[in-house]
Amino acid sequence: MDFKVNSKELEKLLTKIIPAVPSRTPMPILENFLFEIKDGLLTIYATDLEISLKSSLKVVAEENINLVVPAKLLYEIVRSLKETTIHFDINKNGKINLTTDNGKYSLSYLDADEYPEIPSFPEKDAGEELREISINGTELRYAFEKTAFAMSKEEMRPAMMGTLFEFTDDGLRFVATDGHRLVNLLYKGKNNDITNQYVVPERAISVLMKILDEKDVKMFLSKTHISFRLNDIELITRLIGQKYPDYSAVIPLENEFLMKIKTKDVHDAIKRMMLFSATNTRRVKFSIKENSLEISAEDLDIGASGTENVVCEYAGDSIDIGFNSGYVNDILSHLSGEENVVFKLHSPTKAVIVEPQKKKENSDLMMLLMPVRLNN
Amino acid sequence: MDFKVNSKELEKLLTKIIPAVPSRTPMPILENFLFEIKDGLLTIYATDLEISLKSSLKVVAEENINLVVPAKLLYEIVRSLKETTIHFDINKNGKINLTTDNGKYSLSYLDADEYPEIPSFPEKDAGEELREISINGTELRYAFEKTAFAMSKEEMRPAMMGTLFEFTDDGLRFVATDGHRLVNLLYKGKNNDITNQYVVPERAISVLMKILDEKDVKMFLSKTHISFRLNDIELITRLIGQKYPDYSAVIPLENEFLMKIKTKDVHDAIKRMMLFSATNTRRVKFSIKENSLEISAEDLDIGASGTENVVCEYAGDSIDIGFNSGYVNDILSHLSGEENVVFKLHSPTKAVIVEPQKKKENSDLMMLLMPVRLNN
Repeated sequence: MDFKVNSKELEKLLTKIIPAVPSRTPMPILENFLFEIKDGLLTIYATDLEISLKSSLKVVAEENINLVVPAKLLYEIVRSLKETTIHFDINKNGKINLTTDNGKYSLSYLDADEYPEIPSFPEKDAGEELREISINGTELRYAFEKTAFAMSKEEMRPAMMGTLFEFTDDGLRFVATDGHRLVNLLYKGKNNDITNQYVVPERAISVLMKILDEKDVKMFLSKTHISFRLNDIELITRLIGQKYPDYSAVIPLENEFLMKIKTKDVHDAIKRMMLFSATNTRRVKFSIKENSLEISAEDLDIGASGTENVVCEYAGDSIDIGFNSGYVNDILSHLSGEENVVFKLHSPTKAVIVEPQKKKENSDLMMLLMPVRLNN
Repeated sequence: MDFKVNSKELEKLLTKIIPAVPSRTPMPILENFLFEIKDGLLTIYATDLEISLKSSLKVVAEENINLVVPAKLLYEIVRSLKETTIHFDINKNGKINLTTDNGKYSLSYLDADEYPEIPSFPEKDAGEELREISINGTELRYAFEKTAFAMSKEEMRPAMMGTLFEFTDDGLRFVATDGHRLVNLLYKGKNNDITNQYVVPERAISVLMKILDEKDVKMFLSKTHISFRLNDIELITRLIGQKYPDYSAVIPLENEFLMKIKTKDVHDAIKRMMLFSATNTRRVKFSIKENSLEISAEDLDIGASGTENVVCEYAGDSIDIGFNSGYVNDILSHLSGEENVVFKLHSPTKAVIVEPQKKKENSDLMMLLMPVRLNN
């Protein structure tokens, strides 16, 4: 059994698929690609049992072939080759021989039936209605860029380790939170008559961010899986089966005090104050008065402290409020494209909303920051 | 006590000095800078007790001041500031206050007498004759770039953990070796009547590589130290007190078989063969025949093997010779600017010389590679 393929085309394909290969796994078989050749079409799969990627490429083959090959080794070989034709020759004795103009490489393979079942999409499932929605790749990437950082890393509450895709009458909403900060991005209008919640695991998001381009993405939604179909690649992910927490309950509706401030000014000050905030609490204090923000931090362990004044527009009550400096920094980093941001406050114990000052026409971006207690 | 300094000028200075601050040390005091202000000149020192760096800057100060400040924290603060004037105010209670237009920062300092003695240069030592030599910064950087990788990391033979500076009648020679490979670079003519050997520790080399520019460097040589004086910074290093091994004894004089080969071709092939060479031995086999080099490797553990053919010019005896693929790769990486290299061989058990095909007028570069035993 044999087939031929152009090295650069194969490299392009493997580059897209390899993000799904787990780097550490108790199941070594997952460190392989599954190759399926059917009627001259080579389809390559990889999975970590949570997500799977697949993509196809036409090759020169006379027979149908299924086999399992070491992902990293094959990828490294293929991408180290100049453009050439690679001739794959599959021996009965468990070896594949790759031949190019100047080289011969031999790898071990396994039979395809040793590969586990790939998370599959119940496309033909009679019992379940499938939903389909299309979204632009650039928009989807933007949504992930703005929200992904706020997902929880703690396994206590599995739903918060994913990003919520919520289809509502208003549009498609992305929500991520770890209980300390929350991001809420609404794309207006995109709902296609669906109203439902889907919680997409972190790994699907991070792999999608590697492969998304500016083209449209079709999402197919079932109760247990989402399939993302890009131009020439499909990612299927299991959904997190737990209910997402009621995020809307924590969003304050009456934060009446607005502080408008230059994003870069407050961000630069926070970056310096991070140097002084104590390693354990990372606390900084915002002392807000009329048109004046003072940020301060203190690390008693090393005997260092800092205070900065930042100009702002503020006409509300004077407030002293504490934050985790790392979380403030995260939020401002993800708003760094905005010239000005608005902090909406109510009291030292109530969640603070941080928003771009300029609204976009077709989307609403809102970030939320929980305060921390000040000692004095 | 107080002084004022421009933030960007101080940043530039600290950036040059901080490489000497050890990142891990059993002596926390070394994680500080020593500041000395004398007659309006601020001199900053850092040392790890093996090397020291010092540089100076004019500041606005009325008094002479000596103190010890946390290096990393001060550096991070200063480099996060925009261009501004920093006012340093030293309190009696162990605090320095830094004030800028918008911020106030307070750090703890220690007294200068808590700082250990800095490796110093016996400039006025009556008993010892001091030697002085000048070398261009670009040339010195080139010498380190070509030789540093071959220094030993093993503490068994301390001299080999440094680079040999050998002043001979031919010129200034740089040698580094770990017993498996050796680099020998001669700058012709640069000797200034000195004939002696100096072994410079690895850390001095790596710090110098960060701070060297194209300007001339003055080296002052004593029996125990070298001082490198750059434009505005001085690095003093202890020398390694052990005798450097007799490297010339291992350089074969009669390797009569010459293989001329395109550097990129053989390097690309080696990089692929590294994927197949066994993890423990990293062995590759060169099978050299008339105008033909075959490189092969085999990893029995993963059941993979590879063979590549590379065109070369060779008219000597047929030879099968083994190498550590990582060491071949290192050598070829450091010759990657050369279009062709020449391998000079004699037998499968004798050291192989690798040289650029094109000689330079004022320098001679030679690399040497020990073979490894082939099993068959």
